[in-house]
Amino acid sequence: MNELTEKDVIRSIRMLSARQVESAKSGHPGTPLGAAPVMAELYGNAMNVVPTDPDFYDRDRFVLSSGHASAMLYATLHICGFDVTEKDLSEFRQAGSRTPGHPERGVTPGVDCSTGPLGQGVANAVGMALAERIMEARFNRPGCTLVDHYTYAFCGDGCMMEGIENEAASLAGLWKLGRLIVIYDSNGITIEGDTHISLTEDVAERHKALGWHVIRAGSAENTETLAAAIAEAKAEDGRPSLIIVSSRIGYGAPNEGTSAVHGTPLGKEGMKFLADKLEWTLDGFDVPQSVKAFKREMIKKGEAYMAERKSRISEAERNHPESVAELRKYLSGEYARDAARCIAERAPLGSDSTRSHMGKLLAELDKLMPDLVGGSADLAPSNCTLIAGKKYYSPQTSDGGAIHFGVREHAMAAIVSGIALHGGFTAFCSTFFVFSDYMKYAMRMSALMKLPVMYLLTHDSIGVGEDGPTHQPVEQLAGLRAMPRMYVFRPCDGKETAAAFAFALTGGAPVAIVASRQKLPECELTDSAKAARGAYVLYDSEKPSAVLMSSGSEVGPCLDAAKLLAARGINVRVVSVPCMDLFAEQSEEYKKSVLPSGIRVRVAVEAGSRQCWGEYAGTDGVYICMDGFGESAPAGILMEKYGFTAENIADKTELAVRSRNNK
Amino acid sequence: MNELTEKDVIRSIRMLSARQVESAKSGHPGTPLGAAPVMAELYGNAMNVVPTDPDFYDRDRFVLSSGHASAMLYATLHICGFDVTEKDLSEFRQAGSRTPGHPERGVTPGVDCSTGPLGQGVANAVGMALAERIMEARFNRPGCTLVDHYTYAFCGDGCMMEGIENEAASLAGLWKLGRLIVIYDSNGITIEGDTHISLTEDVAERHKALGWHVIRAGSAENTETLAAAIAEAKAEDGRPSLIIVSSRIGYGAPNEGTSAVHGTPLGKEGMKFLADKLEWTLDGFDVPQSVKAFKREMIKKGEAYMAERKSRISEAERNHPESVAELRKYLSGEYARDAARCIAERAPLGSDSTRSHMGKLLAELDKLMPDLVGGSADLAPSNCTLIAGKKYYSPQTSDGGAIHFGVREHAMAAIVSGIALHGGFTAFCSTFFVFSDYMKYAMRMSALMKLPVMYLLTHDSIGVGEDGPTHQPVEQLAGLRAMPRMYVFRPCDGKETAAAFAFALTGGAPVAIVASRQKLPECELTDSAKAARGAYVLYDSEKPSAVLMSSGSEVGPCLDAAKLLAARGINVRVVSVPCMDLFAEQSEEYKKSVLPSGIRVRVAVEAGSRQCWGEYAGTDGVYICMDGFGESAPAGILMEKYGFTAENIADKTELAVRSRNNK
Repeated sequence: MNELTEKDVIRSIRMLSARQVESAKSGHPGTPLGAAPVMAELYGNAMNVVPTDPDFYDRDRFVLSSGHASAMLYATLHICGFDVTEKDLSEFRQAGSRTPGHPERGVTPGVDCSTGPLGQGVANAVGMALAERIMEARFNRPGCTLVDHYTYAFCGDGCMMEGIENEAASLAGLWKLGRLIVIYDSNGITIEGDTHISLTEDVAERHKALGWHVIRAGSAENTETLAAAIAEAKAEDGRPSLIIVSSRIGYGAPNEGTSAVHGTPLGKEGMKFLADKLEWTLDGFDVPQSVKAFKREMIKKGEAYMAERKSRISEAERNHPESVAELRKYLSGEYARDAARCIAERAPLGSDSTRSHMGKLLAELDKLMPDLVGGSADLAPSNCTLIAGKKYYSPQTSDGGAIHFGVREHAMAAIVSGIALHGGFTAFCSTFFVFSDYMKYAMRMSALMKLPVMYLLTHDSIGVGEDGPTHQPVEQLAGLRAMPRMYVFRPCDGKETAAAFAFALTGGAPVAIVASRQKLPECELTDSAKAARGAYVLYDSEKPSAVLMSSGSEVGPCLDAAKLLAARGINVRVVSVPCMDLFAEQSEEYKKSVLPSGIRVRVAVEAGSRQCWGEYAGTDGVYICMDGFGESAPAGILMEKYGFTAENIADKTELAVRSRNNK
Repeated sequence: MNELTEKDVIRSIRMLSARQVESAKSGHPGTPLGAAPVMAELYGNAMNVVPTDPDFYDRDRFVLSSGHASAMLYATLHICGFDVTEKDLSEFRQAGSRTPGHPERGVTPGVDCSTGPLGQGVANAVGMALAERIMEARFNRPGCTLVDHYTYAFCGDGCMMEGIENEAASLAGLWKLGRLIVIYDSNGITIEGDTHISLTEDVAERHKALGWHVIRAGSAENTETLAAAIAEAKAEDGRPSLIIVSSRIGYGAPNEGTSAVHGTPLGKEGMKFLADKLEWTLDGFDVPQSVKAFKREMIKKGEAYMAERKSRISEAERNHPESVAELRKYLSGEYARDAARCIAERAPLGSDSTRSHMGKLLAELDKLMPDLVGGSADLAPSNCTLIAGKKYYSPQTSDGGAIHFGVREHAMAAIVSGIALHGGFTAFCSTFFVFSDYMKYAMRMSALMKLPVMYLLTHDSIGVGEDGPTHQPVEQLAGLRAMPRMYVFRPCDGKETAAAFAFALTGGAPVAIVASRQKLPECELTDSAKAARGAYVLYDSEKPSAVLMSSGSEVGPCLDAAKLLAARGINVRVVSVPCMDLFAEQSEEYKKSVLPSGIRVRVAVEAGSRQCWGEYAGTDGVYICMDGFGESAPAGILMEKYGFTAENIADKTELAVRSRNNK
């Protein structure tokens, strides 16, 4: 890209960004106007991307962690030859468009990651770079380079303030992710004013303390210095790089350099001012001839890059055919699909905690799936996610697929999403269920992006016992079940746990498997295939007058209560609900077959918030649930105190049946 | 404390901690055994505490951020003369005891903060130290020192990995909180193994980059060095201090120095080994004579300290009586109680967004309550929490009560809890509702501790519009409503918003006020007093055949739907539900009067997850809710697309009524 073209490309990104915001009458012009030169340098010179095949596995990745600057990314993708048209730009932030308010993976060709909530993108990028490194270690051989790309992230002052950034950056330093390059656009402005009111720390020194290679590239306008910085960062293989760039927020706008330009369209006058400043005379989303030529060049360049990479593969096929075949299996998701089909057969039987069942199944999966990567936030022994013999990743053993995340739940979840976004792996992470609160937004992003990651969450209720209310989940089941597209399983034994894994491995959505700390009884009546429908009749009797609905550790007491009730002359049905989200998706016919309106007394039994059960238990349902926090005491004592015993369930059910019969 | 006594105090903390764990047969002996000398130094020498009046306002605060080391705190409190008896120690982690698994504020005399989930405590301590500084700036005068204490926090490697620690530490550095002293016990061990597998960053350098004064005090066994470090930290007024101490996890136990000693009782053999090592011959929770004398000394010392402080107050009463009177008002919570009584009269009327109503009421409160402190995570203009004329806190204007938290939601929420724990202020914080996910665990801690903090959460639904699904809450209402003791208000106008504030100011629990971005119509039918019951009949008609239940921005469309339905010959009732949590607490009689079982068709209308409504709408209820994520488009288009229009509500209701009548 010669100097003149570069100037035009930068002008175009600025103008097209501002016009998108203007046409939407909403959006964020500040960062796009300021940081356009960074995008020009990245896409125009530094990165290896393939506009005509934007998901090519060996491309460089780009994460716009400051997702509010989406217009800048769309403008860049447009002029670089990706399938983002002028029409798409004109529909910025409109219903059904390919240019939503914040970047969405799967909606816009060339967008590698959905972003918006600050800090998340940096952690996603760490996950991508980790995936690259593991893959590189596993597949590259002397004379056979099958995996060879970088991960870039762009972030602003806001991302740098978020705790998840420090967690992720600490791991990137520990993991020595030399292929990760983060551009920190320090424009010195946040919504409430100059950053000196809220960000006085030395971001460069902090990252050095975390083990990063830090380059101060000065003004964003100086693209030569930026190019040199990126070259230096690419050459640094032993540490992740942070390139600090200073831009002028809202460059060229009347209110340049102020927080007012962050998130408000420039308006007609402002747009005229900007066009004058940029010497821009074109209409709409038109670009100069030089930029049109640039677009053609970018497409050619991308295709040449892909052709070169494919020739590497062809060569490798001659020398290391098994490596290429294996890589293809990784990238196709074949291992997960195969494992999904057979995992139910390996369901552990017997009385045990569901965390133990889960751990055993995870170990089984690991035998079937070399592409399985994941770990725990420093609780692997307690989570039962310590897989015997699985090699841990470290800078020295970078082919290891077991991960020590340290006590960093939030980054862990986002990193696991990053691994899934990279492709080629099935990823899981684990911690105590109550700490899912720490990673809630990262989990939400995985649901938004439909990423098939697995959250293995143990210690699922007051069954935690002595550790007390800070460690006993109560409302977390309700919170995660309410999250769209997040499939929450709370299995009651090994067979239901296997069903959870089988669903998780079919892909297309994240799954949370919520498991008990304490031992649960064996249940002969459970069935993996039936569990796959979310809820099913576990036990039935003639003309039942009540239905007991339950999950996990409360299924056993419900079955025992059914026996007590039978002895009292009351017939009931017991329904196991391992996954309420899946049950909600079943046909009305199936739902009614499990919960017929004819059985008037409905009893919901779960050591969690009653909220999730309302739709099924109804306005006159019986709720044996947790309406407050737990407390520190042995688990058995708490289960009894809060009523999760066969006796209490039977008594409450009997009372409701008799009172109904008297009406 | 002489050398011999010190040795005995340390031995006692070790032994009594291990014995608590042993008697509970569960708990964490590792940190107590290692860090006992730190506790001895802090409580024995450094801190000003009053065992016989543990909540005295001008005491030093202590936060055990590594809450799993609770046994160490209980042992220390016991031997320092706090009301923690041998019997209490013997009931460690048992139901109803004063020595729960993790420290709980309000349960144990001398515990200043509930802790357990890592990282939280450091942020709570930052809030306490900030409160001290503001109070100090407001009340101290030359010759009149009414506020003069330090905040200490103890944390381990786990806390240092959590993102919330970096957020909070960055703010402490920015705010130059010289009265904050954090002891970082670096024992080099985490649950998964040595910290080199997960914590290789240079914690000291990171804190220096954040503006901290860092002291490396070496081995925890060297109490002289530690004492010197604390003295140096106390002398440093311009920066928070981090004292890094190296302890041996599980000191004296057979498995000293390994992760195995972190969370498992030593067992009979291990206890014998430890007693031999410590040359301990006493039984049960008995302590040496020297320690009994030490306890008496500590009580005396505390009382002397309090007497000295009270003499300062007496003196100030002569020279600055207005200062003392004002301080008493701050500490008594009088301002909040008074404001609670009159805020409803100031309810803003007219058509506006509820965020704007909220902002106006907040400004009114600020006039009534000089003790109101708070701010936003860099969204004050959008949250409408920018209070005109309110002075911002900064190291130069440390009497300011408006806070720039920067983009640090998680630390913000924990800091606000810390301010409330300190006492003397009413604290609030604000951000977009969807980002409440970032601060979820800190919010939970405020609910566990029953702290009357206010979370002002705007942009509450798909009404956010163009910013798209990353910024549109869907499941957050369900998630927070399910949280015990968290009162979630979603008001539909200014009067209901005033009711939310009135409840919040009565204290005893945290409140989340969830407000719309978009303008809502004025509603003549609302009533602040009725809103205080959580739900109430807003509109009624003769023999209604359906009840429409709703909150916030969907109340208006429900009222319009009622009119449309009346025109179609269908009489309905409209119920406004500003606070489901409060409604759940009303008498059965009241609940039935609002939602009589005779009105068979129940329609729940809310732009959020249906989950919360199940218990009220029931198994055959009509749900007009959000079953998936939103999307990027103008708000009006989304509201129509997802069915939140009077027309759609009327149609769905009519269908249900007619189908019911045909049954």
